Amino acid sequence: MQPGKFVTFEGVDGTGKTTQGRLLGQSLEADGIKVLILREPGGTAISEKIRDILLDASQNKMTAETEVLLFEAARAQIVREVIRPALEQGNWVICDRFMDSTVAYQGYGRGLDLELIDKLNDFAVGETKPDLTVLLQLPPHRLAERLEKRHALEAADRLDGESEDFRSDVDRGFRALAAREPERFGCIETQGTKEETAGLVLELVRRVLL
Amino acid sequence: MQPGKFVTFEGVDGTGKTTQGRLLGQSLEADGIKVLILREPGGTAISEKIRDILLDASQNKMTAETEVLLFEAARAQIVREVIRPALEQGNWVICDRFMDSTVAYQGYGRGLDLELIDKLNDFAVGETKPDLTVLLQLPPHRLAERLEKRHALEAADRLDGESEDFRSDVDRGFRALAAREPERFGCIETQGTKEETAGLVLELVRRVLL
Repeated sequence: MQPGKFVTFEGVDGTGKTTQGRLLGQSLEADGIKVLILREPGGTAISEKIRDILLDASQNKMTAETEVLLFEAARAQIVREVIRPALEQGNWVICDRFMDSTVAYQGYGRGLDLELIDKLNDFAVGETKPDLTVLLQLPPHRLAERLEKRHALEAADRLDGESEDFRSDVDRGFRALAAREPERFGCIETQGTKEETAGLVLELVRRVLL
Repeated sequence: MQPGKFVTFEGVDGTGKTTQGRLLGQSLEADGIKVLILREPGGTAISEKIRDILLDASQNKMTAETEVLLFEAARAQIVREVIRPALEQGNWVICDRFMDSTVAYQGYGRGLDLELIDKLNDFAVGETKPDLTVLLQLPPHRLAERLEKRHALEAADRLDGESEDFRSDVDRGFRALAAREPERFGCIETQGTKEETAGLVLELVRRVLL
């Protein structure tokens, strides 16, 4: 057991993971806890270079196999270079996306073998699994609204240029993961303002980890 | 079964893989066979970007896990984007290093789990396994000479900056692979001139594939 706590935020695009991660970090720091806020893929020199390859809109020939291996490579690096040392020093780590996104996006979304993705995740993270994963979920009517709005926009980068079906498969993937590991996942519906959601997140973290 | 044939060259550094691949390609083309000559990692825009990360001498913090995942990502891409289509069109493909290098270098050399590397290789290459793998081996006294000479030189890039023990583990890995799959591997000792070795390679290819 490492002395620090490891919290990840997961969910489909637009659920407010980045904002909620930052707000949780501020609340914890106000309580005197040292917090490191990270995002995936990225967070180390090597992982950021991998991120550049993954997000490059011109790389439209990238195969699903290449994509998942690149995500796992970036993850293996940030875990050993940043996350593990921080936790060992007693810091908390909050990460915007982590291993569950790979299951949801590359497994449920792109149809890669789920068992193999579990193996890749195990290899990439080793013992460094999240103590708590906050799954942010839009209420169904707001998810539909968002998907429609997205649909009308140009794709900003390669990963954003995905269909409505893909996004609904990903959402299903996250729900399946939460059902498989209810002790690690905390699901929060983002119905209210971001401050209201932040209150629910903090309540969850206090109940489970403090 | 694809109509083309897939030949890989493997072996420790300095056994003449690149030269022998080129010479084999020339002989086959003289017989009217269309040949594509590739090297790993690389061979596609995405794979070359991954190669740059792997070879960058400043990336000395790269973990063994990240390294193997990057090699497999580059491989998954070149297999689907280049090798498989070429074989399906009836071309021959000659590749300088392929999946066996990962077993020898990352498995035997760096000590990563061999079973997991087999799984990663299977995932990256799918059905596209070499029809013939030519393992070039220096006679023991020349290997020792080479290792000594290398030892005296500055490391040229990150992957070249490895110890003598590492290289001898890698050599052991290649021999173990050849013993495990004798029907796929052809071992050739590079004792004579490069033309003599090329003659032995061509004889092997004719016997096994033509």
